[in-house]
Amino acid sequence: AETKKIAVIAGDGIGPEVVAEAEKVLHKVGEVFGYSFETEHALFGGIAIDEKGTPLPAETLEVCKRADAVLLGAVGGPKWDNNPKELRPETGLLGIRKELGLFSNLRPAVVFDCLKDASTLKPEVLEGTDLMVVRELTGGIYFGEKFRRQTEQGEEAVDTCAYNAAEVERIARQAFDIAMKRRKKLASVDKANVLETSRLWRETVIRIAEEYPEVELEHVLVDNCAMQLLRRPSSFDVIVTENMFGDILSDEAAMLTGSIGMLASASLGEGSYGLYEPVHGSAPDIAGQGLANPIATILSTALMLRLTFGYGEAADAIERAVAEVLDAGHRTSDIAAGRAEALSTTQMGELILNAI
Amino acid sequence: AETKKIAVIAGDGIGPEVVAEAEKVLHKVGEVFGYSFETEHALFGGIAIDEKGTPLPAETLEVCKRADAVLLGAVGGPKWDNNPKELRPETGLLGIRKELGLFSNLRPAVVFDCLKDASTLKPEVLEGTDLMVVRELTGGIYFGEKFRRQTEQGEEAVDTCAYNAAEVERIARQAFDIAMKRRKKLASVDKANVLETSRLWRETVIRIAEEYPEVELEHVLVDNCAMQLLRRPSSFDVIVTENMFGDILSDEAAMLTGSIGMLASASLGEGSYGLYEPVHGSAPDIAGQGLANPIATILSTALMLRLTFGYGEAADAIERAVAEVLDAGHRTSDIAAGRAEALSTTQMGELILNAI
Ligand SMILES: CC(C)[C@H](C(=O)O)[C@@H](O)C(=O)O
Ligand SMILES: CC(C)[C@H](C(=O)O)[C@@H](O)C(=O)O
Repeated sequence: AETKKIAVIAGDGIGPEVVAEAEKVLHKVGEVFGYSFETEHALFGGIAIDEKGTPLPAETLEVCKRADAVLLGAVGGPKWDNNPKELRPETGLLGIRKELGLFSNLRPAVVFDCLKDASTLKPEVLEGTDLMVVRELTGGIYFGEKFRRQTEQGEEAVDTCAYNAAEVERIARQAFDIAMKRRKKLASVDKANVLETSRLWRETVIRIAEEYPEVELEHVLVDNCAMQLLRRPSSFDVIVTENMFGDILSDEAAMLTGSIGMLASASLGEGSYGLYEPVHGSAPDIAGQGLANPIATILSTALMLRLTFGYGEAADAIERAVAEVLDAGHRTSDIAAGRAEALSTTQMGELILNAI
Repeated sequence: AETKKIAVIAGDGIGPEVVAEAEKVLHKVGEVFGYSFETEHALFGGIAIDEKGTPLPAETLEVCKRADAVLLGAVGGPKWDNNPKELRPETGLLGIRKELGLFSNLRPAVVFDCLKDASTLKPEVLEGTDLMVVRELTGGIYFGEKFRRQTEQGEEAVDTCAYNAAEVERIARQAFDIAMKRRKKLASVDKANVLETSRLWRETVIRIAEEYPEVELEHVLVDNCAMQLLRRPSSFDVIVTENMFGDILSDEAAMLTGSIGMLASASLGEGSYGLYEPVHGSAPDIAGQGLANPIATILSTALMLRLTFGYGEAADAIERAVAEVLDAGHRTSDIAAGRAEALSTTQMGELILNAI
């Protein structure tokens, strides 16, 4: 088979540790299924600021652009938190999304059986929760014009939120496509009773819906959605929303599953290109100690195989291996809940590797 | 004592029913404590659209302006949902906030003992939750310039989010003042890693914090706050944030208490002027049937007495009466949970009246 090129960005904190396990899984899958992967490492985030003076060096962008997909660990940490904007890890994150055209962020929020007690929600409310937030990632208030100016009321700051019809169309289509492969329910979230961008959003989603007569569409106001996620999480299938609302709601949705340390995510652009990363952060407090749970990153790799390369069987094999290892009672400390003996990052990685 | 003028806006749906009970309570308190209240009714929301052709008639605004405080039931309903913008109840709501200068919305989120099972959160997580969201109400993306324009990518919609230092200062001061009267903890919520308005927000809050050395201040990013509200709701005391974030987070906070049907709110301007309303909506499905729970509106009246008129004793008396009636096991259908016999709106109102 053709060699697939993967840019690997370990990043900061626990990033390098969890990415290392995911890479091993990738190569194992290659052996077992006869696929060939070539990985190229690049600096990004805090470590790139330290070593190259910028969170997103030009070489890193080139490595990503010549690859078929990107695997990202995590970026950021207190060390860089008070830096000026251009020297902060999240500036790199926004830059890479825009430069690679990653307009859509998929965040599955599912409840892992072994973690269902970890949620702060009652188990009967959580039962059956399996939703996917599709967040627009390169538009809206994140990327609109920003400035300060002097007014009679003192200094004023301005952010601009803009969306054009084409931007809404492509994310809406993608959300409908995803819904078609799932339970065929789509909740489009906006604030159409207040915002002009939301009214354009809603009109456009309604127009695209005509192409998907089988999908049951509901429009939910963002404040109401924040409530309904708590009241009836299992009733959602796919949620599609703009960048800022998606930032908030995808974190709320992830947290309510109780499984945030195990969740994978994909950021997709045109075609099959994608960037894959765990939902959890760089966890600087436990970095370098071999305590991190590599499962979210390993599952992000499975998403990559399925969504970018179309290697569904291999993705299934990884997901099955993870389930098997968890079913057998193996745990890293974050999910041990004091009951099981806690494995190290590499021990967990190895068990999953062997289960493939 | 001097006669206090109260503008009463019953509004739509269950609004008239719950407001009627709150008015009775107001007059009872007047008798018991020797206060004198004069109420003047005005049309607002859907009913004003139907009868006057606009959600916020000029007479209504005048009635509000010559009053010392406003008591609002609820507005809106499916009947007006597809109207053009200027004929929608929420346009009236935004108009009244701006015209009356109500820059601050206070939403206490507390757990009522009799409702603690109604939350979807585990009781042990909820234990001790008693927080107040202070939402900026007349600035930000709600009131910034909005327009459409043609671009090469098709139609584009734009919303502008702006804040000046003076706007942030006054809401920050108010939040600090409230924190001083509570547990002296303030969480300021922003998205300073992305938005210019958030950076101005954070700088300004830090500056105002110097006036309140006793208050413990933390800055929380909005996505993280949406998670922390679920993970550790009882650790929050006062949360202050801008208009759009406050809309989302105050609804999330209210819902997680499980007590949303019982929560009061206050919208305050300069001086002691304020508008008071229940957090719940107009519930058109049960309107006119005498099923609505008047407690949230009655508690909103208590807030009015305390915050606008400084009648703390009278406010306490109302809150005590509500607690007493609930402790005795009396319930309207929304909080009966099939266990108690359900009282009507007026029966509940009467019991509270008699307990004052
Ligand atoms: C770090 C930050 C800029 C980023 C965002 O807001 O998009 C993060 O919260 C995320 O969701 O990936
Ligand atoms: C109806 C709507 C305009 C309003 C808002 O967004 O402010 C409502 O959600 C609220 O919170 O009072």
